[in-house]
Amino acid sequence: MAFMISQRAFIKLYLITMVEEHRGYGYEMLEAMKEDFRPFGYVPPQSEVYRALHELVQEGVFYRTKRLKGNDPKVDFQEIVLYHFTDDGAEKAKLYKKQVKTDLDRCLGMLRKAEQDNFA
Amino acid sequence: MAFMISQRAFIKLYLITMVEEHRGYGYEMLEAMKEDFRPFGYVPPQSEVYRALHELVQEGVFYRTKRLKGNDPKVDFQEIVLYHFTDDGAEKAKLYKKQVKTDLDRCLGMLRKAEQDNFA
Repeated sequence: MAFMISQRAFIKLYLITMVEEHRGYGYEMLEAMKEDFRPFGYVPPQSEVYRALHELVQEGVFYRTKRLKGNDPKVDFQEIVLYHFTDDGAEKAKLYKKQVKTDLDRCLGMLRKAEQDNFA
Repeated sequence: MAFMISQRAFIKLYLITMVEEHRGYGYEMLEAMKEDFRPFGYVPPQSEVYRALHELVQEGVFYRTKRLKGNDPKVDFQEIVLYHFTDDGAEKAKLYKKQVKTDLDRCLGMLRKAEQDNFA
C-alpha cells in the first residue's frame, strides 16, 4: 500500500466527475483543477492531467471527439478536445471512483491520526 | 509545492514526538509506527525510518547514545540505540513540527475538498 493517494488517481477522480457533469473539455478541465487548488498552493501539472486523460482513454472509460473552437473554419482553426464516456465507461468510472473513495478515506484517517498523535 | 505531504516529513514528525515523550529507542520507534498504522494498511519502511533518524541527527536535532540491552555484557551483546534532543534540538523540532502541521492541514483540506467535490 502506498503512503498517500497518488496524484494520478486524484486527478483521474476529478476528470471523471467533470465528464459526469458534462464538463469534458480537455483544456478547461485542466484550468478548473488549477483554479480549484490554488488556495492549497497545489498546481496540477499539465503533463499529469494529460497522462491521466490518456490513461482513461486507454482503459476504455473515455473517448475523445474534436471540434473547431469557432463556427468559421476560415477564421478559427483552434481545435477543442472533448471527452465522453464510452458505452460502459460510466460504469467503469463508478467502480474506479469507489476505489479512490476508499483510499481517500484511508488517507484522511492517517492525517487526522497524525494531527491527534502529534499536536493534541 | 508537492501534491501531498512527504513520507519522510510524516515519519520525522512521529520520531520527534516519540523523543519528546522519552520513547527514543531506535528499534521500538519503528515498531510503534508499524503498529500505529497497521489499521490503515500502511507499513512505514524501515529504510525510510532510519533515513529520517539519520537526517534528524545530521540536522542537529537528535544525538545518539548506545547501550547494551541487558545488564550482563557476557550474556547480552545486543546494543540499543537511543535518541535524545541536542541542546537546541527541542527548539528546532518545535519549529519543524509547526511546518509539518501547516502541510498536514493543507493536505487534510485538499482531501476533504476532493470528497466533497466528487462524492457529495
